[in-house]
Amino acid sequence: MYCLNSDYTEGCHPLILEKLQATNMEQTTGYGLDPYCDEARELIKAACQRPDADVNLLVGGTQTNLTVICAALRPHQAVLGAVTSHVNTHEAGAIEQTGHKVIEIPTPEGKLTAAQIQAAWTKYATDPSREHWAQPKMVYISQPTETGSMYSKAELEEIYQCCQANNLYLYVDGARLAYALGAPSCDMTMADLAHNCDVFYIGGTKCGLLFGEAVVILTPALKEDFRTIAKQHGSILAKGRLLGIQFATIMKDNLYLELGRKATLQALKIHDALATHGFKFVAESPTNQQFVILTPAQYDKLSEEYVLSLDAYRSDGNYNVRICTCWATLDEQVEKLIAMIPQL
Amino acid sequence: MYCLNSDYTEGCHPLILEKLQATNMEQTTGYGLDPYCDEARELIKAACQRPDADVNLLVGGTQTNLTVICAALRPHQAVLGAVTSHVNTHEAGAIEQTGHKVIEIPTPEGKLTAAQIQAAWTKYATDPSREHWAQPKMVYISQPTETGSMYSKAELEEIYQCCQANNLYLYVDGARLAYALGAPSCDMTMADLAHNCDVFYIGGTKCGLLFGEAVVILTPALKEDFRTIAKQHGSILAKGRLLGIQFATIMKDNLYLELGRKATLQALKIHDALATHGFKFVAESPTNQQFVILTPAQYDKLSEEYVLSLDAYRSDGNYNVRICTCWATLDEQVEKLIAMIPQL
Amino acid sequence: MYCLNSDYTEGCHPLILEKLQATNMEQTTGYGLDPYCDEARELIKAACQRPDADVNLLVGGTQTNLTVICAALRPHQAVLGAVTSHVNTHEAGAIEQTGHKVIEIPTPEGKLTAAQIQAAWTKYATDPSREHWAQPKMVYISQPTETGSMYSKAELEEIYQCCQANNLYLYVDGARLAYALGAPSCDMTMADLAHNCDVFYIGGTKCGLLFGEAVVILTPALKEDFRTIAKQHGSILAKGRLLGIQFATIMKDNLYLELGRKATLQALKIHDALATHGFKFVAESPTNQQFVILTPAQYDKLSEEYVLSLDAYRSDGNYNVRICTCWATLDEQVEKLIAMIPQL
Amino acid sequence: MYCLNSDYTEGCHPLILEKLQATNMEQTTGYGLDPYCDEARELIKAACQRPDADVNLLVGGTQTNLTVICAALRPHQAVLGAVTSHVNTHEAGAIEQTGHKVIEIPTPEGKLTAAQIQAAWTKYATDPSREHWAQPKMVYISQPTETGSMYSKAELEEIYQCCQANNLYLYVDGARLAYALGAPSCDMTMADLAHNCDVFYIGGTKCGLLFGEAVVILTPALKEDFRTIAKQHGSILAKGRLLGIQFATIMKDNLYLELGRKATLQALKIHDALATHGFKFVAESPTNQQFVILTPAQYDKLSEEYVLSLDAYRSDGNYNVRICTCWATLDEQVEKLIAMIPQL
Repeated sequence: MYCLNSDYTEGCHPLILEKLQATNMEQTTGYGLDPYCDEARELIKAACQRPDADVNLLVGGTQTNLTVICAALRPHQAVLGAVTSHVNTHEAGAIEQTGHKVIEIPTPEGKLTAAQIQAAWTKYATDPSREHWAQPKMVYISQPTETGSMYSKAELEEIYQCCQANNLYLYVDGARLAYALGAPSCDMTMADLAHNCDVFYIGGTKCGLLFGEAVVILTPALKEDFRTIAKQHGSILAKGRLLGIQFATIMKDNLYLELGRKATLQALKIHDALATHGFKFVAESPTNQQFVILTPAQYDKLSEEYVLSLDAYRSDGNYNVRICTCWATLDEQVEKLIAMIPQL
Repeated sequence: MYCLNSDYTEGCHPLILEKLQATNMEQTTGYGLDPYCDEARELIKAACQRPDADVNLLVGGTQTNLTVICAALRPHQAVLGAVTSHVNTHEAGAIEQTGHKVIEIPTPEGKLTAAQIQAAWTKYATDPSREHWAQPKMVYISQPTETGSMYSKAELEEIYQCCQANNLYLYVDGARLAYALGAPSCDMTMADLAHNCDVFYIGGTKCGLLFGEAVVILTPALKEDFRTIAKQHGSILAKGRLLGIQFATIMKDNLYLELGRKATLQALKIHDALATHGFKFVAESPTNQQFVILTPAQYDKLSEEYVLSLDAYRSDGNYNVRICTCWATLDEQVEKLIAMIPQL
Repeated sequence: MYCLNSDYTEGCHPLILEKLQATNMEQTTGYGLDPYCDEARELIKAACQRPDADVNLLVGGTQTNLTVICAALRPHQAVLGAVTSHVNTHEAGAIEQTGHKVIEIPTPEGKLTAAQIQAAWTKYATDPSREHWAQPKMVYISQPTETGSMYSKAELEEIYQCCQANNLYLYVDGARLAYALGAPSCDMTMADLAHNCDVFYIGGTKCGLLFGEAVVILTPALKEDFRTIAKQHGSILAKGRLLGIQFATIMKDNLYLELGRKATLQALKIHDALATHGFKFVAESPTNQQFVILTPAQYDKLSEEYVLSLDAYRSDGNYNVRICTCWATLDEQVEKLIAMIPQL
Repeated sequence: MYCLNSDYTEGCHPLILEKLQATNMEQTTGYGLDPYCDEARELIKAACQRPDADVNLLVGGTQTNLTVICAALRPHQAVLGAVTSHVNTHEAGAIEQTGHKVIEIPTPEGKLTAAQIQAAWTKYATDPSREHWAQPKMVYISQPTETGSMYSKAELEEIYQCCQANNLYLYVDGARLAYALGAPSCDMTMADLAHNCDVFYIGGTKCGLLFGEAVVILTPALKEDFRTIAKQHGSILAKGRLLGIQFATIMKDNLYLELGRKATLQALKIHDALATHGFKFVAESPTNQQFVILTPAQYDKLSEEYVLSLDAYRSDGNYNVRICTCWATLDEQVEKLIAMIPQL
């Protein structure tokens, strides 16, 4: 059985483990104040072309989201996000636990638009009883989204302009950022992203690291005392160098983007093979996650060889199935899967 | 100008003020442990036919909702409510501030159904990744709802059976309970309500008191240490007897229901006059709030004599307008308004 | 039996009830936006000689403390207070429920000193691991304190200078402010207080109102969106005018101070009678609460006529007993108590 | 320069890295549901002689404390701990952020006694106004303590009996547990600990792992939905197997205890050398942390070769200095340090 159900099934890129091995008995200061974290921060700031950024290395995605949002908002402020956004779904109410409402916006393919954000803001700002409403203050988007879609550079710019015009922070969750930046159809760079939001994170856990997410804070108001608020949420790793070493490794020599590119190309290859044979998709995705509709028989057949993710039962009896490649996916397994498609 | 825009524009029923005057210089223990609170609690338990109930007298509605919900739930648990429910709208994120997600359910007329609750629970309970979701544990409904609609006894029973079958608490917000129980079309009593939920509150602020909401806790698990959790949220009034005196007065001689009945009949009279003259309604309401569609000219005309509540601008240029009667609304004003309708 | 155990045993000053009666059937806007609240706010700003102040009228003391502190602090920030401070004791962990640590400072008579505050700040600010500590950001003091003591104007000024020098907010809880400002030995005015802190509240519940506390916000940074944060904590009264009417009444014609003065003089008279007959005190108090040491027999004897507050059992078998006067205490009862003293 | 300032300066025991390398490209399920986590859980339950325990593997200490405490307590409940306890000091107010008060108890050497716990409980339980206090519900102790001291088996048993008698949970923070269990003077086993508390954790980060803390939940009431509450706090690692592999390695063949023993013996050797030469200690410690008093000159001299932890400046001008060994400390460095002592 081979897993194509998620992008956190393997350990990490071999170069990382090599480096962890090489540095294992070195002694360093804890809590992210070591030279490896310094190196990682410099590499990230360079990739972002934002020498003014504050970079903080945390362990996981939910942890990062709750820490960033809690640090940014006053008690009555809320975050706007798509219904399908990770903060509104698979985080067990983490944002609410820190005291803040997630205002959910329905969106067919997981992407917010500037128009939706403007409408949500205007609805609030023009309500005569707005003093009685949670105040939208931050917009949360994911690049790529939880459903595989991707913002273009123009869409991102438009969203950020809308946020700035309405005094809203824009926060971009990049848990799978490598798979967006590495996608053939992506028209933005990490630097573009870093110039079109207030804070974002570069996902490591799903993109070749053992674990780790690099929070890049661009707007000065969000920088103050971030480390202490992270500490308060249990988000500071004692042996912080583990994060520094991993990010320093992956950010060098374009490795982060290369891993993303490889996986996305594999996913698109699977997509094209499915499309060629007439399969329909839940939604079109230009990134490493493909969401295809299968009959139970087709699913069962594929499941003899592959672990896939059965996301939902359709009313017509068919299944929504996620097929997910990652930095570690083997080309031979992709080929083998593609070879099975005509016989489904 | 006469206000018909809300049900908290006047002070309180004169009997209450009389009693406050008569007892003003008496000395009593604080925090709800005085004889007047005892009396109020006994009257409420009798009206509910639930001698086993715990009754706690709090000051306001948002305060009551956040205290009850926070006391009932463990950290990861969430409350299910209509999109239009008060806890999801006009409480400035109060529930989230206590750490809990409000899972909103779209519903055309502000009423949840047992089927919707079952669907929401089943969606959660059958999700393979349910460990990563906020756990629905309490259902919040309002009787009458924020949009004037009302649950029948059969609907309430069905909802409560659904809740019990799925181990969910049912909490009924009765901020305007007098206007439901007093409605001619209402087929339930306070005792019916008290036998078909886990906890509810009898609204005072909008139903003839200066302020005050009586929380009736029926399910033993929700009783423990409720007073301390209320204290922790600033919800215990030092001179608790003010609440006791008010509720003891209003619960005697059927006064609470009579006030509700009077206001509801006034509202229905206005409704019928409007309907007779061809006006359309945003939604049908059998209670004290009527939601009518007016042209700007009609609204302006009425606004020369009445303060009404302009709830929303319609896409066709017309207005959604709320007309609200209450325990204090004067018959002569109702008649005068009705007389204006044909000329609009 | 006559109660001298607390200052919230009676209703309110008769003028207030008269005014509530006179205005009962008037219609006003809710949530503190009515003319009576406007009037109260103007009277308070005048008394404070701070036309720039924001005044918000809330219902109770714990509610006020948790709302002010939660509104002022970022997540990692803490409030410094005496071990005996109300926020550290009788609020059931209300401040912590909003997410903030109360850093307790031992102090023999309930008063913090500038030196203690400076020491606490310096300990934090010079700690090499201060990123791992909750950050002191607000100082909480009570005037008078929970143990009856009182800050002099010089002490307050010194504390505020210390706070300003260290970028700390100073918050003064004035739950019993009338009994400090009305004390013969008090050398400060309400205006002095309003020029020597960032935010304070004028206590109503214990000083002649049915309920109500007036939060006076002086520092601009603390004003923004305070009403929404109050709403979020259930601290906004729907019929806000009840607060406006009460504060407008008590702030006129020096009534607030007169009530405080009367009660304090009564308390000092009791104190002197006790002292004359050799009784010892737990602590010296120049305000309306007197803390005397009684033998069980003495306590039992007095308890035949008076409800007193038995605060603690002493290791020598005697009792710490609080005797408390208030705006409503009858002179004849004070005289009667004093007459009993020689026979104890 | 060689670091003896903390126990998280190096990476991890070589066997762990070897195992991470060997399993790196294996595919497993995430979130702790993989075979390595199963193996680790079984080994831990065996070591505890508690097959009924629930074992959860989290990443760090502060994260573990806030998750366990938040999961265990209702909103108004508080945790009792020593003034010097980690939850009261170096966690940036993490417990309060989850809504709970830490009731601090002064204690000279960082250890709570059953008598202190009983006194704190009795003070609460007998207070007539206890409804207005945060309710003590959990006792937090560390084994060994933050100041190096250690509970004997008899002390632990007495504390747990006291907790059980008063319906309090006992939670033991074992961040450095290896250094207690491995101490020559320790008279308890991991199984003893697991039979004398409600929940504890086996510290990995400071005891030979890259990171990781194993929470052992013994009392059924604390087990329900722990994983979801952990998820809500960002405490579930996506690639959970990293924790499983580490704990499975360290729990085998007595490795955890051996590493603790080695470091503790080194620390005691340093202690004895210092004592022999007349040095005084801040407190006596039988574990891997030694707290010695040095003159500035002595400190400077040692600091030419060693990184030590300057904990505090003493009023006599001398320093409190922590010397800390760990699983990775080299014998030759211990010897070299000891050789320097006579010349200080």
